[in-house]
Amino acid sequence: MDYRGIFEDALDALRQEKRYRVFADLERIAGKFPRAVYRDDSDNAREITIWCSNDYLGMGQHDKVVGAMQETAGKLGAGAGGTRNISGTNRPLVELERSLADLHRKESALVFTSGFVSNEAAISTIARLMPDCIIFSDQLNHASMIQGVRQSGMEKKIFRHNDIAHLRELLSAVDRKRPKLIAFESVYSMDGDVAPIEQIADLAEEFGALTYIDEVHAVGLYGERGGGITDRDALAHRIDIIEGTLAKGFGVMGGYIAANKSIVDAVRSYAPEFIFTTALPPALCAAARASIEHLKTSQEERAGHMRQVQLTKEILSEAGLPVMSTDTHIVPLIVGDARLCKAASDLLLEKHNIYIQPINYPTVPKGTERLRITPTPMHTDEMIIELRHALVSVWAQLELPRERAPAALTASKLTSGDLTLPTTGG
Amino acid sequence: MDYRGIFEDALDALRQEKRYRVFADLERIAGKFPRAVYRDDSDNAREITIWCSNDYLGMGQHDKVVGAMQETAGKLGAGAGGTRNISGTNRPLVELERSLADLHRKESALVFTSGFVSNEAAISTIARLMPDCIIFSDQLNHASMIQGVRQSGMEKKIFRHNDIAHLRELLSAVDRKRPKLIAFESVYSMDGDVAPIEQIADLAEEFGALTYIDEVHAVGLYGERGGGITDRDALAHRIDIIEGTLAKGFGVMGGYIAANKSIVDAVRSYAPEFIFTTALPPALCAAARASIEHLKTSQEERAGHMRQVQLTKEILSEAGLPVMSTDTHIVPLIVGDARLCKAASDLLLEKHNIYIQPINYPTVPKGTERLRITPTPMHTDEMIIELRHALVSVWAQLELPRERAPAALTASKLTSGDLTLPTTGG
Ligand SMILES: Cc1ncc(COP(=O)(O)O)c(C=O)c1O
Ligand SMILES: Cc1ncc(COP(=O)(O)O)c(C=O)c1O
Repeated sequence: MDYRGIFEDALDALRQEKRYRVFADLERIAGKFPRAVYRDDSDNAREITIWCSNDYLGMGQHDKVVGAMQETAGKLGAGAGGTRNISGTNRPLVELERSLADLHRKESALVFTSGFVSNEAAISTIARLMPDCIIFSDQLNHASMIQGVRQSGMEKKIFRHNDIAHLRELLSAVDRKRPKLIAFESVYSMDGDVAPIEQIADLAEEFGALTYIDEVHAVGLYGERGGGITDRDALAHRIDIIEGTLAKGFGVMGGYIAANKSIVDAVRSYAPEFIFTTALPPALCAAARASIEHLKTSQEERAGHMRQVQLTKEILSEAGLPVMSTDTHIVPLIVGDARLCKAASDLLLEKHNIYIQPINYPTVPKGTERLRITPTPMHTDEMIIELRHALVSVWAQLELPRERAPAALTASKLTSGDLTLPTTGG
Repeated sequence: MDYRGIFEDALDALRQEKRYRVFADLERIAGKFPRAVYRDDSDNAREITIWCSNDYLGMGQHDKVVGAMQETAGKLGAGAGGTRNISGTNRPLVELERSLADLHRKESALVFTSGFVSNEAAISTIARLMPDCIIFSDQLNHASMIQGVRQSGMEKKIFRHNDIAHLRELLSAVDRKRPKLIAFESVYSMDGDVAPIEQIADLAEEFGALTYIDEVHAVGLYGERGGGITDRDALAHRIDIIEGTLAKGFGVMGGYIAANKSIVDAVRSYAPEFIFTTALPPALCAAARASIEHLKTSQEERAGHMRQVQLTKEILSEAGLPVMSTDTHIVPLIVGDARLCKAASDLLLEKHNIYIQPINYPTVPKGTERLRITPTPMHTDEMIIELRHALVSVWAQLELPRERAPAALTASKLTSGDLTLPTTGG
């Protein structure tokens, strides 16, 4: 049996579709974020500016966060040393869970090793525990949510992206006595559009469904206390389960859910992805908690973030670049072709020392390939001007299109027969 | 719809079966391992000795490991800031993967956020990429491997634990032209028994199957360079995929596979659990690498470990305690009843300041409930003597059984109709 041949064929298929990925080898520089050292194939190093980080507020470089990590590692050691049940539950983890419950004003919270794992574990476990449950899932939900839905083994209905009328139609068609779970995101990371949370909560109330929101791209960034869009819009109490990550706005690693005590305790007690894995290291928990607590009161990072996002959108638009309009911190520039998108990214890195990784199918639909720009509060006005010059030069050199794309482009590109992207978001 | 009631009922079911778990809140003390601060329900703190850590060598407290973590956090920041593809690939991560490939003498290695995720991602992706694949899975495989098998959606055959004859029988019954994957562990963590690796490799060769081994409870601990049982027995070259964790013997967090370039690249390119999640923080990667590199040359920790394990087995056996005989570092004491097992654990903590968490169903079959003791090189001779006194006192007070259990007890307790435990290992 030629096993190597089987795997090589699978890789060739990706190469032919121009989907084979090469990861850039980066070394961020604490205190100099968003600057980083890039190493090319020949191991030559040079400094570049990262314009696609999901450490949206640069909290991964914040003194308090790094300090908490170092201090806790020094006092408690590197790893947790066991699963939650086998001696791995550590004090900073217990405190982190309290801090998260408070962030979302929920009774309880539960920490997982990542946002991916929290979605997979929570969605599948919650659905499995409800006999004959049916899941309503937004068409553009993240791969980790899709995995949770699949793994539950429960019946699912996919509703068109952010389409309340379609969701209502699907809900009405189902027996009122069946338990229901509606799963969706607040900020969709590729188009930067926002779900109609209140209307979904209204429908959930009308049809007696549980609601599950992924606030991964919003926590830390939105709301007076950084609780995400549900904090900003005062809707947290209308959502049953809020899921988030510690790895983006908070700058560390790990994921969580916040919900009422019974739901959290049930997931804690039944989810294999939670039970059978080593707990998050105390130093990461302490760092994440420092970040969350800081962002509960400090408005500086959020204000700086929004200012630089706005400025970036304006400056790039004025330069005639095809900035997709969004209500959030995500600034997509549509290229519309996989090969050209990769070429643009390569040119930016090689000629302009700017790193923006290309986003191609299957992360976004074919024809909507893009550069996804994420300004942070640490990107200076000068950096934004440099970025404009670099992009204008690349756009001219590659003769890239300049038409503006409509908002929420992704969903519009999916045909109605094709209700799910294979995957979204990485 | 009474959703809270549904989840409360699920929790009550666990309480009735005496399976409801309460996590002990521990604070390890760097430099004083295995000592830790325990907080009871009223938040009163006191020092105790942990006897059930999976930080088997205490590497989570090693100067080099903690130092690398602190230094790297100071230089590169707390989190990775993105998925592997979206700016998250960091230099220490690239170096860690090289160090792991070298550890197992494989062409390549790939790091995941945990050992759980590495099993789920690698097994499901490898199987899915092989058309019409069939998976042969040991009956006592860990929950994360079971999840990988399930998620692949491929046909599976469960072979009786470590039973070569049964595996042969199952292999012979399948069309020779179908791709095959045999998945098993080296050290099974509950009984401490070891797989017949060489015989499984022979069968794989005979029937043209790929082999996948979980060395989670062996890496760092066994072999001249800490490469696990396959290192100790010079069998790494006969196994296609070696999976391990950075969270147990190496004392940090994260998981990995090591294999040939094509397999690793295919998993890297196709596994959603790898693609759609934030990369491991640089500080964890640097800490893990420091641990791995240290254990590639230092024999001190392994020698000290084996000495204290041996001593613990001897001293407890001489005291007439029902130590299950094992060939490894795991020292199970069989209690055989869920309520008594919990009571023994509680008494040890309350009266003797010793923490050994009870292992009940579904982690082990009913009737084989146990205390699972894991001595480390840092457990002194005096601590072992204290442990003996404490256990003898608890055994007398609760009138626990003293019959010695046979080796590899768990499998013998499963009926042939019941080829899988719901879950094992956490
Ligand atoms: C919407 C969404 N949910 C969940 C995740 C996973 O979070 P984490 O990176 O913490 O695993 C991501 C991205 O990584 C995401 O984009
Ligand atoms: C056999 C086995 N494989 C995998 C894992 C998961 O490893 P990790 O803790 O790194 O998720 C465990 C335990 O946690 C285990 O016992």
